Amino acid sequence: MPTVTVTRRVRFNAAHRVHNPALPDDENARLFGKCNNPNWHGHNYTLDVSVEGPMDPKTGYVFDLAKLKAVVQKEITDIVDHRNFNLDVPFMKDVIPTTENIVVAFWKLLAPKVAPAALKRLVLWETENNYVEYDGR
Amino acid sequence: MPTVTVTRRVRFNAAHRVHNPALPDDENARLFGKCNNPNWHGHNYTLDVSVEGPMDPKTGYVFDLAKLKAVVQKEITDIVDHRNFNLDVPFMKDVIPTTENIVVAFWKLLAPKVAPAALKRLVLWETENNYVEYDGR
Amino acid sequence: MPTVTVTRRVRFNAAHRVHNPALPDDENARLFGKCNNPNWHGHNYTLDVSVEGPMDPKTGYVFDLAKLKAVVQKEITDIVDHRNFNLDVPFMKDVIPTTENIVVAFWKLLAPKVAPAALKRLVLWETENNYVEYDGR
Amino acid sequence: MPTVTVTRRVRFNAAHRVHNPALPDDENARLFGKCNNPNWHGHNYTLDVSVEGPMDPKTGYVFDLAKLKAVVQKEITDIVDHRNFNLDVPFMKDVIPTTENIVVAFWKLLAPKVAPAALKRLVLWETENNYVEYDGR
Amino acid sequence: MPTVTVTRRVRFNAAHRVHNPALPDDENARLFGKCNNPNWHGHNYTLDVSVEGPMDPKTGYVFDLAKLKAVVQKEITDIVDHRNFNLDVPFMKDVIPTTENIVVAFWKLLAPKVAPAALKRLVLWETENNYVEYDGR
Amino acid sequence: MPTVTVTRRVRFNAAHRVHNPALPDDENARLFGKCNNPNWHGHNYTLDVSVEGPMDPKTGYVFDLAKLKAVVQKEITDIVDHRNFNLDVPFMKDVIPTTENIVVAFWKLLAPKVAPAALKRLVLWETENNYVEYDGR
Repeated sequence: MPTVTVTRRVRFNAAHRVHNPALPDDENARLFGKCNNPNWHGHNYTLDVSVEGPMDPKTGYVFDLAKLKAVVQKEITDIVDHRNFNLDVPFMKDVIPTTENIVVAFWKLLAPKVAPAALKRLVLWETENNYVEYDGR
Repeated sequence: MPTVTVTRRVRFNAAHRVHNPALPDDENARLFGKCNNPNWHGHNYTLDVSVEGPMDPKTGYVFDLAKLKAVVQKEITDIVDHRNFNLDVPFMKDVIPTTENIVVAFWKLLAPKVAPAALKRLVLWETENNYVEYDGR
Repeated sequence: MPTVTVTRRVRFNAAHRVHNPALPDDENARLFGKCNNPNWHGHNYTLDVSVEGPMDPKTGYVFDLAKLKAVVQKEITDIVDHRNFNLDVPFMKDVIPTTENIVVAFWKLLAPKVAPAALKRLVLWETENNYVEYDGR
Repeated sequence: MPTVTVTRRVRFNAAHRVHNPALPDDENARLFGKCNNPNWHGHNYTLDVSVEGPMDPKTGYVFDLAKLKAVVQKEITDIVDHRNFNLDVPFMKDVIPTTENIVVAFWKLLAPKVAPAALKRLVLWETENNYVEYDGR
Repeated sequence: MPTVTVTRRVRFNAAHRVHNPALPDDENARLFGKCNNPNWHGHNYTLDVSVEGPMDPKTGYVFDLAKLKAVVQKEITDIVDHRNFNLDVPFMKDVIPTTENIVVAFWKLLAPKVAPAALKRLVLWETENNYVEYDGR
Repeated sequence: MPTVTVTRRVRFNAAHRVHNPALPDDENARLFGKCNNPNWHGHNYTLDVSVEGPMDPKTGYVFDLAKLKAVVQKEITDIVDHRNFNLDVPFMKDVIPTTENIVVAFWKLLAPKVAPAALKRLVLWETENNYVEYDGR
């Protein structure tokens, strides 16, 4: 069977503050600029979850995208949507909530949940002009 | 001279909490659902500022869009970008930061600044699927 | 109170055939071209539902967009999504399913359901390059 | 019959220089900044052509959008696509090629060609963040 | 010469029904949900065709994108646009028309037609939130 | 540390003419069609600059995107925005300004400037439907 990658796009919004509590305030301000605002700011995030595998001859699907949406909703969006990454999200505790750290945390949650397909790539957009991608390396 | 409407689109992001402090917490939760999260959430906002007027025969412009961008930046985005609408924005004090109230507040700030053109319409997108528009009535 | 227009965007997909059963097949083919394919074709539709009214001072909302989404889902998308406009949709019976006729039918369903706000405008995209709008006239 | 507005979106690209030949070079540079570059610059333009009218009961169409596309192609895109607004476009002769002047020129060409419908609105995007609209006034 | 990948995006729309004729109706309904509607539904599809190769020093092109568009039109869009994947498309006969199976069928048609470049990747969007990609493996 | 790819999207517009001065005019016309217009045409370009590397534990960043934006602005957009690729851009001298040649030239400028991260991929959109990508091979 051919190996195809299928992607489900989901959206959520959240508040955050880019801040390293191990550093003094003035260094945080210098490093992170307006992203360090102590009163938070926020984004509409877009996440593309891509899984790869052979097609099931019975269905012609690599992974039913309705099921993939349900997995992402349970593992990710139910936890982070309309929340504060610094204050409300258990799996971001003690992590600076940069888009890089968020995407790596998402990988750890999703990778075990998509068998028998394999998680291939996550792309996370923070704004229309900035995005990060991660493939588990 | 023909009357043309010209629009400049700007973007910013901010945190907010939809909350009416005059109401008890449980009614706030019932009215506003997840938008009432006490730890805030946030959005990437898109704002279309439209001004209308005759073209200046010397320039062929209704209003120089570089100048319109500068006006919007000074009056709006420098104040709200990477901020918290409830805590950081003086002109939103004592106002529930719904998209409706935000767009009306923006109108009051921008309308006096675009003469000799006239502010015609503001469109404010809160998410990819929700937007409000206001024409000063 | 200021009068603001708020919009909720929804999406659905459907099959249809543009065909006037009162006309002979060759005239249908001439009038509608490939849109007359007897085996159907289909689209991802995007619908912007705009309602207008004063803000409620208690909420800062013209109309709670979560409720507007629920109204549109019950009246429209639950009936048309993943369906065939010619065969499956009771309110399109005996109507040629052009985008124009679809948007007028949607208006009749939605206008009575958005009080105390008023339905102001429907915009229905059939493809990325074609859309229609209707304001009830 | 209900009155519906139908829109066809078309795209083209062109070079131009925003320049008023009646003014000295230094004033042109001051007024138009980088848009005055003597060696030209260019854009991918997007044009939304909206016509309004009653639906034809025979077709359910206000105006066949394939025909509207053909009208716009003949009157506009065949003349301006991959061209220079200052040097190649007869109907822009002696006009400063601002987006405002371009949209007004387009109106004059298209308004007589869409009977029995009426040209309602043209929207012309010059960049992702700038657009103008004109309704014939 | 550097190796560059060039992509042409094309769009088409079609009807389909996700259905495995070897299975009973109730299992089809369970497996495919609303996508199994016997009266069909449809989509606006977007296809990105990417070919890779060295640049021709005479033209600076890897592959003339006007020619690539013509190849895709002849092999794909002329066959599937405004059609029904289950009933009208010879190369989908006896295949469940999932996006996965469609993209693999497209690959077989396009790969032999882009020499001396090489077909590198196909991305097929079924909706704004779902897409599949295939690289020939 | 995980290896993440971060991308900054920038936009600019420019004029160009696809023309090989070593060939006679009629062959240029045949090879390049309307892109060979001697009076130029132009585009709004979109460029995605992707750099890859381990995250810095102090910041949670692979590469501060504000700094990446500044690098791209200095090396690329300050030179090409609102300019003519054939006449105004030193690094395109003696090169046919196809999108392929432009993206390779951009790579040479940017690759040395993103240490300690590594330039991973450039994607350059010329129109909504055409883009090229390059990874330095």
